[in-house]
Amino acid sequence: MRSFGERLAAVFADRGQLCLGIDPHAFLLEAWGLPDSAAGVRELSMRAVDAAAATIGIVKPQVAFFERHGSAGYAVLEEVLAVARAAGLIVIADVKRGDVGSTVAAYGEAWLTPGSPLEADAMTISAYQGVGSIVQPITLSRAAGKGLFVLAATSNPEAVSTQTAVIGAGDFAGSTVAAGIVGEVERLNEASALGSVGVVIGSTVNLNDYGVQRSALSGTPILAPGFGEQGALLSDLPQLYGSVSGNVVANVGRSVLRSGADGIVAELGRHADELREALAS
Amino acid sequence: MRSFGERLAAVFADRGQLCLGIDPHAFLLEAWGLPDSAAGVRELSMRAVDAAAATIGIVKPQVAFFERHGSAGYAVLEEVLAVARAAGLIVIADVKRGDVGSTVAAYGEAWLTPGSPLEADAMTISAYQGVGSIVQPITLSRAAGKGLFVLAATSNPEAVSTQTAVIGAGDFAGSTVAAGIVGEVERLNEASALGSVGVVIGSTVNLNDYGVQRSALSGTPILAPGFGEQGALLSDLPQLYGSVSGNVVANVGRSVLRSGADGIVAELGRHADELREALAS
Repeated sequence: MRSFGERLAAVFADRGQLCLGIDPHAFLLEAWGLPDSAAGVRELSMRAVDAAAATIGIVKPQVAFFERHGSAGYAVLEEVLAVARAAGLIVIADVKRGDVGSTVAAYGEAWLTPGSPLEADAMTISAYQGVGSIVQPITLSRAAGKGLFVLAATSNPEAVSTQTAVIGAGDFAGSTVAAGIVGEVERLNEASALGSVGVVIGSTVNLNDYGVQRSALSGTPILAPGFGEQGALLSDLPQLYGSVSGNVVANVGRSVLRSGADGIVAELGRHADELREALAS
Repeated sequence: MRSFGERLAAVFADRGQLCLGIDPHAFLLEAWGLPDSAAGVRELSMRAVDAAAATIGIVKPQVAFFERHGSAGYAVLEEVLAVARAAGLIVIADVKRGDVGSTVAAYGEAWLTPGSPLEADAMTISAYQGVGSIVQPITLSRAAGKGLFVLAATSNPEAVSTQTAVIGAGDFAGSTVAAGIVGEVERLNEASALGSVGVVIGSTVNLNDYGVQRSALSGTPILAPGFGEQGALLSDLPQLYGSVSGNVVANVGRSVLRSGADGIVAELGRHADELREALAS
């Protein structure tokens, strides 16, 4: 069985590093002429999966917008996950779950267990309760060839005070919270190849401000939301991430989805070309 | 319309401060002779709601154990939430969601909007992306008479390095991350009465170790997991929380649920009495 890191590296090589965020916001449903219902979410999401399968290799459904519609939204999500995986896409469930012990293990079982109704290839996870708290889903993900992306440095301004707070004791004493998470994740991966435990680092984050060294990310996949709508340009990716640009899953969402059902394939293709050119230059 | 804080204070006065965690673990389903399926989860949860309605005033379903069963688990959860609320229980959805912008707003809509299929009275939330990132669900919850509990100091040892890290700039410079969250939440509540934005502080947490002052919690509801199974005794609650003991939602879960379908009412009543006596003495 191939690891998640190996699968991700293969998709990067074959289909590039662009990821489509499937974020069926109420305002997007309206713009698409769809009802704000589970049926509307299904229609937008299936079109988005089709467009992604035709152009790129990775999708990231934002689960909050399915949960808004309760169990009916989750039934749609099960379909979307299954169709996307069957189309060969790597599916990252953006759920930002986090807890301890058997509870966080249950989240791993929900999203990363083969045969689970909500099976994805990877999930996002929050380690406010410590990277040590998510050991169980990490172990479970490895056994199943799955992956995780741990929130490290996000790009929203309200996050700065927590994520740049300085750790007082232990192995990462003197590091920022964000750098401590990056360091703990680094230990979980092998430096010689792309690992299976990633981090989330916002595309508008200045790594220096967060005390994060690029060298600590050499074997770590980096999920980078915020391209397009939130201000970062795909053409700037090599400059933003430097030596670890090749590890970045570059997510675009609203800026593509707002082009509507008829425009999405072309818009996604345009973004994929832009990223490919930037990384090749 | 009464605020969540007012409703919580009324339930404290009428029915006490004990909360039953509805955590349908696989091992508990097995101990109850139930299948590890959505149907098994439904049976255990409905019995737990019945027992709670007969003895106490608050329940806290742990959503991870419903999510394990996908949309079928969520359909059961919708039923459990509705039955518990109809029985007059305050229902805290333990979801620990967190995100930014319109995404975290969608979580608020899912769990705290009247008429939503997953409507609860309050939800737990993670502020790894900053208390400022969760302003939208806070605003939404106030308008609907709902509440939130923000993770502050959890009782698992892996959490210490993040939660005691020291903030470097801004209004809470020099505070720990946990104390900064407590301080930001304090500003959101009125000191003169129980507020509607709470915090999660584990029952085995030494507040001094986390730099959290009890005085900053005077108007803040405190959700305290970890009684029973995780080592803290209900009889020690007044000593643990001192002057703010009256703000504590004391959660027991496995230690009650493992008494089985036939023992749960008696066991829950025993715990409620123990807590009432401790708080009265």
